[in-house]
Amino acid sequence: MEKSVEIITVGDEILTGQVVNTNAAYIGERLTAAGIPVEWMTVVRDQRQPLLDAFATAAARAKVILVTGGLGPTPDDVTKPCLVEFFNDKLVLREDLLKKVEKRFTDRGLKLPEVSRGQAEFPASASEIPNPNGTATGIHYSRDGREWFALPGVPYEMQAMIEDYVLPRLLKIGLGGQVVIRILRTSGIGESFLLERMTRFDEAASLVDVAFLPRYFGVDVKLSSRGAEPTEVEWRLKEAEKLLLPDIEEYLYGYDSETLPQVVGGLLREKVFRVAVAESCTGGLIAKLITDVPGSSDYFDRGAVTYSNQAKTELLGVPTSMIEDSGAVSASVAEFMARGLLERSNADVTVSVTGIAGPTGGTPQKPVGLVYIAIADRSACQAHELRFIGDRDTIRKRTAAAALKLLYDRVKNLDSKG
Amino acid sequence: MEKSVEIITVGDEILTGQVVNTNAAYIGERLTAAGIPVEWMTVVRDQRQPLLDAFATAAARAKVILVTGGLGPTPDDVTKPCLVEFFNDKLVLREDLLKKVEKRFTDRGLKLPEVSRGQAEFPASASEIPNPNGTATGIHYSRDGREWFALPGVPYEMQAMIEDYVLPRLLKIGLGGQVVIRILRTSGIGESFLLERMTRFDEAASLVDVAFLPRYFGVDVKLSSRGAEPTEVEWRLKEAEKLLLPDIEEYLYGYDSETLPQVVGGLLREKVFRVAVAESCTGGLIAKLITDVPGSSDYFDRGAVTYSNQAKTELLGVPTSMIEDSGAVSASVAEFMARGLLERSNADVTVSVTGIAGPTGGTPQKPVGLVYIAIADRSACQAHELRFIGDRDTIRKRTAAAALKLLYDRVKNLDSKG
Repeated sequence: MEKSVEIITVGDEILTGQVVNTNAAYIGERLTAAGIPVEWMTVVRDQRQPLLDAFATAAARAKVILVTGGLGPTPDDVTKPCLVEFFNDKLVLREDLLKKVEKRFTDRGLKLPEVSRGQAEFPASASEIPNPNGTATGIHYSRDGREWFALPGVPYEMQAMIEDYVLPRLLKIGLGGQVVIRILRTSGIGESFLLERMTRFDEAASLVDVAFLPRYFGVDVKLSSRGAEPTEVEWRLKEAEKLLLPDIEEYLYGYDSETLPQVVGGLLREKVFRVAVAESCTGGLIAKLITDVPGSSDYFDRGAVTYSNQAKTELLGVPTSMIEDSGAVSASVAEFMARGLLERSNADVTVSVTGIAGPTGGTPQKPVGLVYIAIADRSACQAHELRFIGDRDTIRKRTAAAALKLLYDRVKNLDSKG
Repeated sequence: MEKSVEIITVGDEILTGQVVNTNAAYIGERLTAAGIPVEWMTVVRDQRQPLLDAFATAAARAKVILVTGGLGPTPDDVTKPCLVEFFNDKLVLREDLLKKVEKRFTDRGLKLPEVSRGQAEFPASASEIPNPNGTATGIHYSRDGREWFALPGVPYEMQAMIEDYVLPRLLKIGLGGQVVIRILRTSGIGESFLLERMTRFDEAASLVDVAFLPRYFGVDVKLSSRGAEPTEVEWRLKEAEKLLLPDIEEYLYGYDSETLPQVVGGLLREKVFRVAVAESCTGGLIAKLITDVPGSSDYFDRGAVTYSNQAKTELLGVPTSMIEDSGAVSASVAEFMARGLLERSNADVTVSVTGIAGPTGGTPQKPVGLVYIAIADRSACQAHELRFIGDRDTIRKRTAAAALKLLYDRVKNLDSKG
């Protein structure tokens, strides 16, 4: 149990399958990346006895115990009292925390609800883990050679506390190992085909671990280099990357945590281009993804969600006769949408999408999953026909990913305006 | 531990966060629906000692143990040998299973790979769980009053075996209980305020379990009624709902698995209304959420993602002078956006959003999180000022949720066109 880590997730909603345990996955990923392997994950009910039992089991097998959930203000939140009982500690009302909690409400013109006063009670002999995004203060105990961290279950609150407090603390006490990770992010190719293209895969795999992670936006190729000697660990990683990259470069859009919308945005900013999108079957998803990126107002001009045929005609000038002749899902309509938006906006490049996301609306000639994506700029307009498999949600996500990759490829090859 | 169930998921890919544990969620959901509550979920490495430890821990606290993963043909698949060791059993090559495994390959014109012969070895004193979709036969032990089931980790193989074998077996031995669940889905109010409004909370909580689940779209209030006598279980649930509902009714938008976009869509369809949205800070998210629902083309007319001021003016007719005087983030601009879209579309009701999602762009007068939402129909247009806390993603999601709730409230009070 020298370095062993256990994650305890508290919550009936996980046990009943209403909520998938993404919090444990997040923590697992972050700790693994820091060279701290997670050995156990446990999910337990929001109840005193099972939680105390889980604490006892964890104490017997782990050195680091991370608890998420059960720190809220309602009666089903039992983590804090259970920790206090487990460590034979007591709760005290902390005036400084009370002020903080109160301020979160008064800042929004609200009065502190009576039930939320409990959020200012804190175990006498624990350390606080500051929560910049909520009222639940995290709890940190160092006891009998073990580190205990209790964090709220709200993902963005928990995540900030892992990054700002838990990870630095674990690294400080020497739990991190030498692991260097490099993620090659690709789009537009499946994992088996990616592997098939890698002529020097075996050589690379003898230097580092190579894992393929299929995601909606494409396949991530994750290289993990481990060892005792930092210089050698770094060297292995660089060598492996050199061996793999030439064969897959055309599908690569970024590294590590870079997302496709971020990379596209960076390229648009660099070239001083503005983009606009016209979406039918993706219904606003592409615009949403582009504007997920802070500062995207620098390069995102506008979006038109032309779901109805009438909207395609009124907002983008697609001729009614063209929709009647070719159908709304066709290469010519996609091209016209992209060109029409280019004429009617301040964008230098436009993306359009029309397709059948399902589950209904498919025909033998035009099945569910058939999608046309067009990219237009001042010099050219090109439509692409793509076919996706999956449910409505999957088809929409894969369509958005493909549209962003096509946009990226086009903008990369255009001369900068700046 | 009388009826207690533990799910053990075997696999490093879950512990490293590469894969989210959807298998455990599936089993949790199916067993809960059958009245068999899951008490524990554990994730463990693909290694002998940790897995044997997990078996011992489970045997000490659970009556039913469901293991998924680790039944494949490669060396990292250790579940079968560990079970055999744990139960002091032995593996025998089963000719009937070998034929089945072989047939799966020859049917596809392939020769049985040597490594896959191991799939025909089965514990001498266990029962088979047939796998209609793969080569890994499931393993069932009944020992010392406990039921052990080992299933493959491939989701669709595992799911079929849960449905066809595990659930019928658990019901046959009398584990199914009476659990009835009712979820009251609310939006527009935090959990502490919701609890504060519930004047009869204590009475309700004496009848059923009450849990509060905060989500981006609002807070779910989950009532779980348990017991031996079906009529009484139903009665408790109905009584509890009657006690809680009057105090929170104005925040309720639906029940159980109904989502806000579904409920809004159903209402629009029922009243024969079409909707259009004009989005600034949410950047297409509201349109995306509305069109997530299959069949939304019946009531979704169009969306305008007017991110730039110029787009607000060109697409919605917002006067440049108004943006200069009041700022793009203001009640008057929100109102004008909603009205402008109503005039320029075929919608009966429109929603507009303008705000500061951050992380930059805030000022002391107009901080990050300040949002204006307007709803317009033929008779009226009203803007609402809201303030949200959180990161960019949270502010955008909460804004979209609030906009959909305001749309819902408005449409509910309008006369049907049909």
